[in-house]
Amino acid sequence: MDRDAFRAAAHATVDRICDYYDTLESRPVTAQVERGYLAQRLPLEAPVHGEPWSAIMHDYDAHILPGITHWQHPMFFGFFPANATYEGILADMLACMTTNPAFNWNASPAVTELEFLVLDWVAKMLGLDRAFLSLDTTHNGGGVIFGSASEATLTLAVAARERAVARLASERNEDAQVARSRLVMYCTEQTHSSAKKAALILGLPCRVLPVHRSDAYALRGATLRDAIAQDTQAGLVPFYLVATYGTTNTCAIDCLAEIAEARDAAPHLWLHVDAAYGGVALSVPEYRDAHLDAINAHFDSFSTNLHKWGLVPFESSPTFVRDRTPLVHALTLTPAYLASRGGEDLVSDLRNMQISLGRRFRALKVWMVLRSYGVQGFQAHIRSHVAMATAFAERVAAHPRIEVPVPPRWGLVVLRVTRPGLDAAQTDALNRAWEQQLLARSSDLLLTPTVVPGIGVCIRWVVGAVSTRPEHIDRAAALLGACADALP
Amino acid sequence: MDRDAFRAAAHATVDRICDYYDTLESRPVTAQVERGYLAQRLPLEAPVHGEPWSAIMHDYDAHILPGITHWQHPMFFGFFPANATYEGILADMLACMTTNPAFNWNASPAVTELEFLVLDWVAKMLGLDRAFLSLDTTHNGGGVIFGSASEATLTLAVAARERAVARLASERNEDAQVARSRLVMYCTEQTHSSAKKAALILGLPCRVLPVHRSDAYALRGATLRDAIAQDTQAGLVPFYLVATYGTTNTCAIDCLAEIAEARDAAPHLWLHVDAAYGGVALSVPEYRDAHLDAINAHFDSFSTNLHKWGLVPFESSPTFVRDRTPLVHALTLTPAYLASRGGEDLVSDLRNMQISLGRRFRALKVWMVLRSYGVQGFQAHIRSHVAMATAFAERVAAHPRIEVPVPPRWGLVVLRVTRPGLDAAQTDALNRAWEQQLLARSSDLLLTPTVVPGIGVCIRWVVGAVSTRPEHIDRAAALLGACADALP
Repeated sequence: MDRDAFRAAAHATVDRICDYYDTLESRPVTAQVERGYLAQRLPLEAPVHGEPWSAIMHDYDAHILPGITHWQHPMFFGFFPANATYEGILADMLACMTTNPAFNWNASPAVTELEFLVLDWVAKMLGLDRAFLSLDTTHNGGGVIFGSASEATLTLAVAARERAVARLASERNEDAQVARSRLVMYCTEQTHSSAKKAALILGLPCRVLPVHRSDAYALRGATLRDAIAQDTQAGLVPFYLVATYGTTNTCAIDCLAEIAEARDAAPHLWLHVDAAYGGVALSVPEYRDAHLDAINAHFDSFSTNLHKWGLVPFESSPTFVRDRTPLVHALTLTPAYLASRGGEDLVSDLRNMQISLGRRFRALKVWMVLRSYGVQGFQAHIRSHVAMATAFAERVAAHPRIEVPVPPRWGLVVLRVTRPGLDAAQTDALNRAWEQQLLARSSDLLLTPTVVPGIGVCIRWVVGAVSTRPEHIDRAAALLGACADALP
Repeated sequence: MDRDAFRAAAHATVDRICDYYDTLESRPVTAQVERGYLAQRLPLEAPVHGEPWSAIMHDYDAHILPGITHWQHPMFFGFFPANATYEGILADMLACMTTNPAFNWNASPAVTELEFLVLDWVAKMLGLDRAFLSLDTTHNGGGVIFGSASEATLTLAVAARERAVARLASERNEDAQVARSRLVMYCTEQTHSSAKKAALILGLPCRVLPVHRSDAYALRGATLRDAIAQDTQAGLVPFYLVATYGTTNTCAIDCLAEIAEARDAAPHLWLHVDAAYGGVALSVPEYRDAHLDAINAHFDSFSTNLHKWGLVPFESSPTFVRDRTPLVHALTLTPAYLASRGGEDLVSDLRNMQISLGRRFRALKVWMVLRSYGVQGFQAHIRSHVAMATAFAERVAAHPRIEVPVPPRWGLVVLRVTRPGLDAAQTDALNRAWEQQLLARSSDLLLTPTVVPGIGVCIRWVVGAVSTRPEHIDRAAALLGACADALP
């Protein structure tokens, strides 16, 4: 494709993007295709000769788009949101134009420097302590934009592990392999699966701590304290705890202050906050509470996903650490061909804070989105969804058969149908039937079934798409009610 | 930003992209900024109120672009290339438009299904055996598009580790923790740093095997055999070897057939080929040789980066395994909210083959690039750079002071200046002086200094940008010659 062909194709693509958003509401939310559909429709090997762009776009329309579930659709209420924004598209066009990795500073100075700058923008917007800022040289904290919360959880586990091993070596002269064999990490029954995945990847044991409905699924200090006592007694060293600020199932927040206090008994325990979805809500002052104080005073790291509810398209997981040293020490390797010009500067080479060397210019879209929205615009986006969720929860709870078994938080509402006289198993079966009814309406809206311990089968409903307006909330509530009415 | 503002901004961005490529040659290749420049120029916190797009683009031009090193510049000869293409930009616009993760099949069927389809396209184009195909159901092989070769090397190490641990458990009833403590992985002195980084991350020992100039820096079977014998004798279990098809320093290719033969003494050794840069050259039949036969007959996995020399912008590291089971078993976790509709289908949920859950629609740009170029166009791209590198090597070698100390391969030429009568240290100093001369010309061209064992300080020159033409090769050769002439 030459420049003229690109210019024509790209202008057409811009109009197509506008058309996509214009017509989004008329599309089925969920892809209506069967498993294996695409291999029936497309050739199983690349063409020998190049094909015209028009043919490629024809097949995109005919075969790819029908297999897309429209996460930007105003009636998408599944999982957690994955925001696309116009600013994000524009920034990614520019990032793709220059395609310039930045594993070290001189590979592209602006990529590294803008990353540290926007990390500070995000930290300040969320009310994080200056200890977490990258460009404040009075301390040793800072951040990096990971590709995902899973990558953050894993990479920080490595930093925590190496910090614990180094301390055990200096305090007790313990061999690294012996020290590693004594480590144990912690999460709860409601922590995101990425914590257990990090343990699987690292081959380290993960103790899954119990949480209870009576505590709103939050990890309590006493539970942690008991686990620490037992594990320490057994010769284990608790080294890493993934606390959650907004679990996937119910948006539970672990008791962060209690956790910090319980750490007194486990001095090597790295406290991480996974705020993948909920973290962006900290941009709104009235949603902040003592949890933020606990993070700022005691936690070693904090991660949130702008690519969920934070208006920045993939991949954007800003992550902040109180001390960069363990992270950088755990990951630094510098062969001659990667040395930064003007000498090695550990804290200014992005590769020393992440798994990969090369990746795209992630900071650009954060910068462009935050400038175009401003902090007030970002807050308005968050507030509007919280207001819609509140209105939705009130409306559905008024339905005689629908209950909201846990208090809604942010954009999440957990739902369940009930009927007097049913036992737990029968109620679960009723909810599975409701789920099937809703699945049959998957063109109209998308929801995520789940199982909440102590409650049973539930439906998660999350508002977060940029396109969703109050009328969509009304329509969703009406649909859920109609499906509930149709149940036996 | 509303739709009309986006339409105007996006059309302007399309023209700007064309303008960028039109004027690319007139820009300095390397960013001419000092460390810390950006924080002097931009506010340290996000604006309270949203700003107009024109103000943002003004600052992009004034402050971001000057800090960009232009990897797409025709005079960029550093590191390895990072190709941007028009097709890649268009595909990413569309991927960003729909922003739809695909951690399980129903989250977006087309994302999962197109990924398996294009992985097969790539495998076939590179001549990989059908054992590595995803959609061929007669075997258990397949692939995934990782974000980087580092991610591939790490993730496959986890699969290899778990395979070894499972086998030791079933063969000897060995406890998993004991088994893990006996594992050792292998790479060579010239393997990319990502292999050692995988070992750091996993906390496993990595034995770095020696390679020699007399073997063109290739790992020999005898070296591996000796290491296996020693480690086995010491009670260790070699579990993972990262062989390289084109090292960063000199594009060395390890002796893959010899390695495969040596594995007879280490039955749990997973053989991986890191072909991050060189793998795409396998698309050209005349560049294939017995190494490909060895990969096809014996290796457990193979990874290459389309986002280097393969015309697809970040992130695109197609990776192929002969058996998906160990990978999927090592990484699978399925909480209720992630279950695929229609039941769990391990091999069709991308999250079970990678670290992260959510990420962008990576397959779309592979599909669009390969359709637009066709296999012939892809091959022509590779062949043209190899021809340019060959011409360049001949031309610079004719200079009285420049030598090409290792045979060029693909787009890479390793260079060095010499002067009769200098010892090794003096020659290194001379080459450092040459490097400084070239650094002073960093507006005109970009090269990467390195150190090659047994030779000393060298310059790596790699052609790979889509924009580079034979006249740029001539200009680079002339510049290198002029800088060599200016040396004492």
